[in-house]
Amino acid sequence: MRIAFIGLGNMGAPMARNLLKAGHQLNLFDLNQAVLAELAELGGQISASPKAAAADAEAVITMLPAAAHVRSVYLGDDGVLSGIRAGTPTLDCSTIDPQTAREVSEAAAAKGVELGDAPVSGGTGGAAAGTLTFMVGASAELFATFKPVLEQMGRNIVHCGGVGTGQIAKICNNLLLGISMVGVSEAMALGDALGIDTQVLAGIINSSTGRCWSSDTYNPWPGVIDTAPAARGYTGGFGAELMLKDLGLATEAARQARQPVILGAVAQQLYQAMSLRGEGGKDFSAIVEGYRRKG
Amino acid sequence: MRIAFIGLGNMGAPMARNLLKAGHQLNLFDLNQAVLAELAELGGQISASPKAAAADAEAVITMLPAAAHVRSVYLGDDGVLSGIRAGTPTLDCSTIDPQTAREVSEAAAAKGVELGDAPVSGGTGGAAAGTLTFMVGASAELFATFKPVLEQMGRNIVHCGGVGTGQIAKICNNLLLGISMVGVSEAMALGDALGIDTQVLAGIINSSTGRCWSSDTYNPWPGVIDTAPAARGYTGGFGAELMLKDLGLATEAARQARQPVILGAVAQQLYQAMSLRGEGGKDFSAIVEGYRRKG
Amino acid sequence: MRIAFIGLGNMGAPMARNLLKAGHQLNLFDLNQAVLAELAELGGQISASPKAAAADAEAVITMLPAAAHVRSVYLGDDGVLSGIRAGTPTLDCSTIDPQTAREVSEAAAAKGVELGDAPVSGGTGGAAAGTLTFMVGASAELFATFKPVLEQMGRNIVHCGGVGTGQIAKICNNLLLGISMVGVSEAMALGDALGIDTQVLAGIINSSTGRCWSSDTYNPWPGVIDTAPAARGYTGGFGAELMLKDLGLATEAARQARQPVILGAVAQQLYQAMSLRGEGGKDFSAIVEGYRRKG
Amino acid sequence: MRIAFIGLGNMGAPMARNLLKAGHQLNLFDLNQAVLAELAELGGQISASPKAAAADAEAVITMLPAAAHVRSVYLGDDGVLSGIRAGTPTLDCSTIDPQTAREVSEAAAAKGVELGDAPVSGGTGGAAAGTLTFMVGASAELFATFKPVLEQMGRNIVHCGGVGTGQIAKICNNLLLGISMVGVSEAMALGDALGIDTQVLAGIINSSTGRCWSSDTYNPWPGVIDTAPAARGYTGGFGAELMLKDLGLATEAARQARQPVILGAVAQQLYQAMSLRGEGGKDFSAIVEGYRRKG
Repeated sequence: MRIAFIGLGNMGAPMARNLLKAGHQLNLFDLNQAVLAELAELGGQISASPKAAAADAEAVITMLPAAAHVRSVYLGDDGVLSGIRAGTPTLDCSTIDPQTAREVSEAAAAKGVELGDAPVSGGTGGAAAGTLTFMVGASAELFATFKPVLEQMGRNIVHCGGVGTGQIAKICNNLLLGISMVGVSEAMALGDALGIDTQVLAGIINSSTGRCWSSDTYNPWPGVIDTAPAARGYTGGFGAELMLKDLGLATEAARQARQPVILGAVAQQLYQAMSLRGEGGKDFSAIVEGYRRKG
Repeated sequence: MRIAFIGLGNMGAPMARNLLKAGHQLNLFDLNQAVLAELAELGGQISASPKAAAADAEAVITMLPAAAHVRSVYLGDDGVLSGIRAGTPTLDCSTIDPQTAREVSEAAAAKGVELGDAPVSGGTGGAAAGTLTFMVGASAELFATFKPVLEQMGRNIVHCGGVGTGQIAKICNNLLLGISMVGVSEAMALGDALGIDTQVLAGIINSSTGRCWSSDTYNPWPGVIDTAPAARGYTGGFGAELMLKDLGLATEAARQARQPVILGAVAQQLYQAMSLRGEGGKDFSAIVEGYRRKG
Repeated sequence: MRIAFIGLGNMGAPMARNLLKAGHQLNLFDLNQAVLAELAELGGQISASPKAAAADAEAVITMLPAAAHVRSVYLGDDGVLSGIRAGTPTLDCSTIDPQTAREVSEAAAAKGVELGDAPVSGGTGGAAAGTLTFMVGASAELFATFKPVLEQMGRNIVHCGGVGTGQIAKICNNLLLGISMVGVSEAMALGDALGIDTQVLAGIINSSTGRCWSSDTYNPWPGVIDTAPAARGYTGGFGAELMLKDLGLATEAARQARQPVILGAVAQQLYQAMSLRGEGGKDFSAIVEGYRRKG
Repeated sequence: MRIAFIGLGNMGAPMARNLLKAGHQLNLFDLNQAVLAELAELGGQISASPKAAAADAEAVITMLPAAAHVRSVYLGDDGVLSGIRAGTPTLDCSTIDPQTAREVSEAAAAKGVELGDAPVSGGTGGAAAGTLTFMVGASAELFATFKPVLEQMGRNIVHCGGVGTGQIAKICNNLLLGISMVGVSEAMALGDALGIDTQVLAGIINSSTGRCWSSDTYNPWPGVIDTAPAARGYTGGFGAELMLKDLGLATEAARQARQPVILGAVAQQLYQAMSLRGEGGKDFSAIVEGYRRKG
């Protein structure tokens, strides 16, 4: 299958690599010439613009940093929609706000193109290993078309509903994740301050009603989970800046919908304070450090 | 075994019933004569005071509403400590602040009595069915002494560490629970407002990083979990007033320890607003109603 | 002086009326034909586009609802910058984010036009009465040019610094205002619940360290200030939706600057909850109603 | 007038000194012998207990650190109520919870003694200078009796209503103060981060709707107000630990009344985080430091 793959950053490049390995032919576009050259060696074709990449493609996949790039790559003068053939299945894997996802999809529909959204979770590790989760907002037909392709890049391919619902699922999940991690941090730090052994406390929480992924799989307290970023100085994992991006999308979508997200907004501010302290590059579970007594 | 059982309310009465069924002899004390009469018919002995109940007991168990009652039942003129024989194993199953638990335990130690704390979770249903969880703060010896007795009233008997750690474990877990439930409510309500099917959203969260007991077992959104209070108008379950009590204990313990619990404090206020609206009698998961669009 | 006045809504129309009364000649543009007709009867000239309005003007003033309109009115195909003569002093009185204010100003500078920002406070009442406050971000020269004109529409004309600082001043002030109003609401409602006379409480606060505009001039508790919206069912005044707009601008600017605004974010969510309850049309001081016991 | 003055700490000692200067005879009690000796040199009589101090006094004034001390000084075996003559006017100037104030006052009434509450503001500086504010909860008669005495220690003597209302007035005011200071900190830090001159910003706020004591008199940003603690490294002034005490009283009273204080609870946690960082000894306006970019 000839696929236009546009956006070859930390996530897009390893995803494209997996598609090349799976035997697809790729039309590649990115502003970074080095990554283009590297993927060309693996068999990809370099295109001069999104328009050119889309022109003869049987499918289009995009993976971009933010909504402004999505608008520009699809709607710009040399954009995908100016070159694509009507009927070409198209999927945007960027994490952006649902509103933009829907607007660009409507613009695509006006050209006879069905454009779905499929944001991922799993990070750069999952992108390299081909174990990403894709949350897909698309018609049943478009979902069926892309499912086998996505399975070459990921492990869980979830159909969330119509266009935009992939983005909605991701921001709602990550809103809750951002809150839960702060909640676990407060509970662990309080227990420690009051004098309970933190391993014992985590064990009780994990078999009780406080149980959650942020505690049983990714506990922010050092010494509780050997494989969590807390065990390696909060390196790797899911950076606080990425959590901030997703909480920003969630609270902005909530604002537009006049939907309060009170704890979500506080959590966002706490990660923002972490960023202000110069710690935005750490894994988001380092939020617990603001709750720990020094020395 | 002859056990003094003091405090026969909604929780204490069914717990005492299970001990009677298991063949123990109980010395009973409560201010409620009706419940005393009822338990006397099942074989219990009515005592005139906590002091009298403790006098010839081989063990003492108390289950009281709040710290003031614990102080009074143990330290009062006719209290347990004025009548108990040195060396009698003693356990308080009330949910109170760790500070009081430790202070009363120290007063007991001065009389040669080891007093542990063992707050429960599982509610009145668990008390009746004998499936409670006990979080025990006590020495290894006292824990070993009480474990077989507690197994006649509960299913999970967890040793949390020394005196006070049972209370600490409970308030830390419930702090996190109170936060998680608000977090799930915000995520579900936001998803609904943005247009994703809430069953689909819950399914995604439950297999992703937002996964938690408040979502996968007790989801507050009607229609997601058939057995949750949301499916029966938020009746039964764990009342918002009880959650408020536990969050009050957590934030007060945090205040004394100069330990911030930012989301915990906000969650407490949100349940308080629910109480102000006259809805404190509902299950705590009804907190979601404040996030839902009317009609 | 011939002034292009673009944007004739609830604020812009009375402002333009005051300029006509002061003897200026106005080139008018808006999409609303009715208001154009009405102002034409007072002597204004109707223009076909922002471009046309600006073409022969000696100064340009715009008053628009949001950043998207500002971009379109200045940068669009028929926009101000496509028709304006280099050197024409230009001022945008819209309340928008500082980032957009600076970007559009830079685009203007590239055409030889100095564009300042001058958001207002004082509401539609102040616009009609000519008593607005203008917070002006502009060079000293541009400020000096516009000051006499602004004095025909307002009472306080404040120079805040360079381009963008007018917007910054406004969103910082209103961030604090939004917080203060919630703070006063909590203090008044708590006092009432605990049993102090609310008039006495307000008097004490107003002569003590809690003193603030939200208490001494605009107290949200009915019966404290006769002239406040609380005395007339929270009608008139500064609508909660407008407060939400300004808090949205503040938290978004804070997000971009990685600057935490914790209480500001919570306040925003509380007004959002008010909006969800269908009360966004009331004066923002009605936020107190969420804190009051029913009946 | 012979007055029993009990509690001679940082506040009580200078207050007693002012009463001695005004010509009163004082029966003094405190556990600190050094301060007793010092005040005895100024003419005070040292008493052996609160009971002894009250025995021949024409009036009783107490100034104690917390509710537990108030209970003990009034209700203890050697307490005021065990020695006082019926009809002796009595006033407690401690800052404690309204509930305890009312309970101890009821115990006093049972002995024929009217006990009012009169917490102060103004700090140790105001105590020394005799410029305190007294917020008095008492009957009109008791207020009239004490007013001339209080005027020898303070400048503003405010009658707030019946017993307990002095405490209510103080905690409601300080709840709002604690919130306002965080609000001003967020607004100033945001303005600084966005690029407005902070002196200009403060000037605009102080003449606009954000105006408040925390901005116009006690602005936390260094360089804005020469006389504020911000100008001297946040020394002197009103310590964060004292603010924490008052916010603790306010949120606890709110909890008992089931009255939400959402921003108040968040503000309390933020000062608690400041205390955790080891900065609780600074003036409370140092809360702004958590919002400032380093270096």
